[in-house]
Amino acid sequence: MAGDAPQPDPHLQRPDLPPWQQPDSVGIVQTQYHTFAEPPHPMPLDSGATLGPITLAYETYGQLDETRSNAIFICHALSGDAHVAGYHSTDDHRPGWWDAMVGPGKAFDTTRYFVICANCIAGCSGSTGPASIHPATGRRYARDFPVVTLADMVRAYKALADHLGARKLLAITGGSMGGMQVLEWSIMYPDAVHAIIPIATPARLTAQGIAFNVVGRQAILDDPHYNGGNYYDGPPPNTGLAIARMLGHITYLSDDSMREKFGRQLRDREDLSYDFGVDFEVESYLQHQGQAFTERFDANSYLYITRAVDYFDLAGKYGSLADAFARARARVLLISFTSDWLYPPTQAKEIVSALRANGLHFAYCEVPTRYGHDAFLLEKDTLTRVISDFLALEYSRALRPEAP
Amino acid sequence: MAGDAPQPDPHLQRPDLPPWQQPDSVGIVQTQYHTFAEPPHPMPLDSGATLGPITLAYETYGQLDETRSNAIFICHALSGDAHVAGYHSTDDHRPGWWDAMVGPGKAFDTTRYFVICANCIAGCSGSTGPASIHPATGRRYARDFPVVTLADMVRAYKALADHLGARKLLAITGGSMGGMQVLEWSIMYPDAVHAIIPIATPARLTAQGIAFNVVGRQAILDDPHYNGGNYYDGPPPNTGLAIARMLGHITYLSDDSMREKFGRQLRDREDLSYDFGVDFEVESYLQHQGQAFTERFDANSYLYITRAVDYFDLAGKYGSLADAFARARARVLLISFTSDWLYPPTQAKEIVSALRANGLHFAYCEVPTRYGHDAFLLEKDTLTRVISDFLALEYSRALRPEAP
Repeated sequence: MAGDAPQPDPHLQRPDLPPWQQPDSVGIVQTQYHTFAEPPHPMPLDSGATLGPITLAYETYGQLDETRSNAIFICHALSGDAHVAGYHSTDDHRPGWWDAMVGPGKAFDTTRYFVICANCIAGCSGSTGPASIHPATGRRYARDFPVVTLADMVRAYKALADHLGARKLLAITGGSMGGMQVLEWSIMYPDAVHAIIPIATPARLTAQGIAFNVVGRQAILDDPHYNGGNYYDGPPPNTGLAIARMLGHITYLSDDSMREKFGRQLRDREDLSYDFGVDFEVESYLQHQGQAFTERFDANSYLYITRAVDYFDLAGKYGSLADAFARARARVLLISFTSDWLYPPTQAKEIVSALRANGLHFAYCEVPTRYGHDAFLLEKDTLTRVISDFLALEYSRALRPEAP
Repeated sequence: MAGDAPQPDPHLQRPDLPPWQQPDSVGIVQTQYHTFAEPPHPMPLDSGATLGPITLAYETYGQLDETRSNAIFICHALSGDAHVAGYHSTDDHRPGWWDAMVGPGKAFDTTRYFVICANCIAGCSGSTGPASIHPATGRRYARDFPVVTLADMVRAYKALADHLGARKLLAITGGSMGGMQVLEWSIMYPDAVHAIIPIATPARLTAQGIAFNVVGRQAILDDPHYNGGNYYDGPPPNTGLAIARMLGHITYLSDDSMREKFGRQLRDREDLSYDFGVDFEVESYLQHQGQAFTERFDANSYLYITRAVDYFDLAGKYGSLADAFARARARVLLISFTSDWLYPPTQAKEIVSALRANGLHFAYCEVPTRYGHDAFLLEKDTLTRVISDFLALEYSRALRPEAP
């Protein structure tokens, strides 16, 4: 920046204040719960089964405006939860999973927008899932939980959004599995959303994507503690779950980002163990990630959620991808990342073709990055820039729907 | 081809004959064994430990010529063995793993060349490995087997080649791990090889490559049957080994080849299981591959061999990749495959730079293919063409070393 006059930075950090009192933090937040689909009116599922009652754990940030035009729904990724931003207590050292993006002055500016995020059904962070009590039996569902699809998850999200008064959302966004849900939502409820921001997502899982899920699930199913899914009264299948997570982490990083992060750095370059101890940084990283995951995630949820992702195939569901978006009316900001090899830009471009075929208004942003799939959590500056601008424009447009 | 006159095809298949009597087959072959490094003269290893006696299972095809100038050593990949070509008996329905390339009139023409392949040390197909009897204890080595490197494997191969009278090899070749050994060999014994044909290989394992190995090994180590490696008297850790193999198979295929092979084809498209049964072809393929592997491979060998691959890093070992090849004198035909994402062409090009920096004679062939890493086993026609020509030229050059 030219000029000597100091520019006041609206996002200036205040070193004298704790994280939850920073000007750009949503502060201390509390997870809330909404229960619906109570029998005798359970929610129908794609499988033909029903689920109910359903509880969704959710958080909201900001306020719904008078015209109910400023609501944004965030769909989390496979291992995410409702806790997007802020801190749960003053003892909480880790903010929500997308805190970099949600707060006063951030991409999803909570002084302007009303932001909602909920844990998906089949999840394990407060929403109804395999670890919940099956009302019919009084025991945990475990494998009696019905197999759900991403569309089923969206149905439940929609019920929550309606409950919160946001019958028409300004925007829906999410990365990875969240992005898949965004696409489903825009097709299932075309009149209930003004704009969507799908990030790092394909329109269907490829055979390779399914293959990675197959191996992760196999590790869980083969864990002797798995016990057909009934492990809640004993040791959980944590070794299998950790292996599934280790494998997942490989797919989230690019080879470039791995090289930058770990290189082939030995713990002690001069002293190879010549054993099966930890010789490489990448080994200890993956082992730590696998282990840490078992402390916060339920193996059955991992099975159900990855299965829902396997089934995701908009072209298969609607005949073709162009047919899928024929019903959609949302304005689209589609974002992919150059080094994302799990859901690469080539797959985003298939979505672009389908949007174009239907004359939908869209912007496509391919972000150059070395972070791989994880870039949707890490490319804060670029995402903030493109999303802030898009939302500001779409918000003013949503407030004046008659405008061209 | 123009012209009406029928061209006699030297490779004409004879439908009246069984596979082992086809004109281009090496026929019925027998695995042989060579034992060396007997105490008190065991072979020193990179780790500082020693190994001996060492038995190598090997096969040879064709005849060593009078000047001992026509020997070609083939180094197998991770799950390979000494049985490259032909059949072990008239009941044998599967030929050796590179039968498409080795035989009369094939790329490695056994009417011209003397072809050798041996199972690596630490392997489980006849060579000394963790399942072998430890002479000091009378019990199986299991985890008392020393950790070996690819260079150690090459030392043992070299001893076998010398024993067979092929002190200077016309060529050394191999794909994947075999290609890594080819590179090591050309640097360790620069005067003992005329030409090398490394295929689908990097000059070091990347962090991502190590990461895949880490997850596969973890699945084995965590298998409750693993028992610290002492499972030979009980059920082996086959669930862990199968998971490791499933994961490996994902890395051997390209996303393109997976799409062609499986698409997202459901077993029954109209009838999703909505369960954790097999809904996708790729699931049953991987499960079959994993299961079949446990019937022929030893889990401890998988640990030791992948560990040897992890340690492979020519730049780390010699200071830089250019320094590594400073000692090499072989003429090089380097081959990579466009869709190989495990060891992609970008990594082959690092080798090219190092060869060029040292003024070595090389040809680099990047084969356009959709087969991914597995292409080194599948791109028979292209490989045959480039390798046949290269070998013919180098053989005549080797016979007249004074030629320019």
